[in-house]
Amino acid sequence: MILLMLSQKPNKLHTLTEFAEKFGCAKSTLSEDMSALKKVLAQHGLGRIETVPGAAGGVKYLMGSTPEQNIAYIQSICDILAHPSRILPGGFLYTVDIFSDPTYIRRLGEIIAAQYYGAEPDVVVTVESKGVPIGLMVAQALGKNLVVARRDSKVTEGSVVTLNYLSTSSKRLQTMSLSRRAVKEGQKALIVDDFVKGGGTVGAICNMMKEFAVTVVGVCSLVASAQAPQRRIRDFRTLMVLDGIDEEAEKVSIRPADWLAHSK
Amino acid sequence: MILLMLSQKPNKLHTLTEFAEKFGCAKSTLSEDMSALKKVLAQHGLGRIETVPGAAGGVKYLMGSTPEQNIAYIQSICDILAHPSRILPGGFLYTVDIFSDPTYIRRLGEIIAAQYYGAEPDVVVTVESKGVPIGLMVAQALGKNLVVARRDSKVTEGSVVTLNYLSTSSKRLQTMSLSRRAVKEGQKALIVDDFVKGGGTVGAICNMMKEFAVTVVGVCSLVASAQAPQRRIRDFRTLMVLDGIDEEAEKVSIRPADWLAHSK
Repeated sequence: MILLMLSQKPNKLHTLTEFAEKFGCAKSTLSEDMSALKKVLAQHGLGRIETVPGAAGGVKYLMGSTPEQNIAYIQSICDILAHPSRILPGGFLYTVDIFSDPTYIRRLGEIIAAQYYGAEPDVVVTVESKGVPIGLMVAQALGKNLVVARRDSKVTEGSVVTLNYLSTSSKRLQTMSLSRRAVKEGQKALIVDDFVKGGGTVGAICNMMKEFAVTVVGVCSLVASAQAPQRRIRDFRTLMVLDGIDEEAEKVSIRPADWLAHSK
Repeated sequence: MILLMLSQKPNKLHTLTEFAEKFGCAKSTLSEDMSALKKVLAQHGLGRIETVPGAAGGVKYLMGSTPEQNIAYIQSICDILAHPSRILPGGFLYTVDIFSDPTYIRRLGEIIAAQYYGAEPDVVVTVESKGVPIGLMVAQALGKNLVVARRDSKVTEGSVVTLNYLSTSSKRLQTMSLSRRAVKEGQKALIVDDFVKGGGTVGAICNMMKEFAVTVVGVCSLVASAQAPQRRIRDFRTLMVLDGIDEEAEKVSIRPADWLAHSK
């Protein structure tokens, strides 16, 4: 029951007093329970419980698996995406069904989040609209808020900052807007997107963060193209690398990224 | 541990054999554990476990609270949204931070999902891009996939069906596209959106579903305007009713919907 409450709010601190009052038991019993829970979680690779000592301390639930578990899971997603029926005219890949399926996207979001607990982002930033599902799941696993940059500014966002940038993939000038209320000066942001080709869009989000005096602690995508002509982004990570799509041979080459061998 | 695994995949059937193998214990012990779990869950309003009998049976975790818990939670969201600082020029309300916050939106998604377990939707449908977070969370709680209709069709979606409709709020002709791969004939859809004013957009999704021979089993929004000139949608529900925004008096009137008194 405690595990359920912890896992529903990952990375949020709960005090033992809170549980002791809710379930009417002694804190010493709870401490023993926690030790047992930590062991079982580690054993089954179902995340971990961290104890924060001190007066303001407590326990929190964090995602995390072994590199082997991460690679195996991402390989299973690559296998699904590599199916020839997913090749669209023009050499594109149909991914939107997998990347809006809560079962898949939740686990992928947990894998991304686990890499960034140490960087302590205050907020997860993405761009509408295909980045929203993965952004939300990363935000959920980090216990933080999601901020969505818009392609066009809406009246329901209040005053916005707008940025024009060159999309490297479509070679067209694009517009991105972010509500002035969305982030605060001095915050740390993790940038997440579904697909990165040339890096124009995530690069533009990085520039937008500069406008807001927000520090970018990481940039991570689900899939990135291996032939990206230039990566304009520092500290860039992707879960999957798309080596290429051969329309004639009906072959998709997609694989887990190398850094996953050292992932958390 | 079993509760963690069940709760991570709501509305998905797990067999006792699966757990017995994973944790190396007898099925009879597990049956007793389940009975105990069911009682504690009911006691704390943390959802429920349903047993499906028979050879193809098993157990599954479903969301669900009492009407009192639902109303109290939605009232707390109304209290946040009613803050005068949220009034935007033109009489709009700033809601996007709350409706992209995983903590809030997850719970709101669970409340919506709990009302539709009986209707057995195969898929949750929303329209980009502000409907995506709530759509994803409802889909997660239902254990189903999310389908997102687009404002413009993208090459990465394959062939699409496009529909033009009149937005009742902006009084402008809008376009909506849905990938032909997104839903299958004969499926049942639950339509979810963040805000409904005139009902033009959700009405258009309903019409789009007709084009795909998909049955709409329900339409639910987070907030709906009380002064909507005409509701073109049958079986429409909303969690919150926006009675009005008085810019001069800096007053927002928003309240939980009446039907929540009979909610699950």
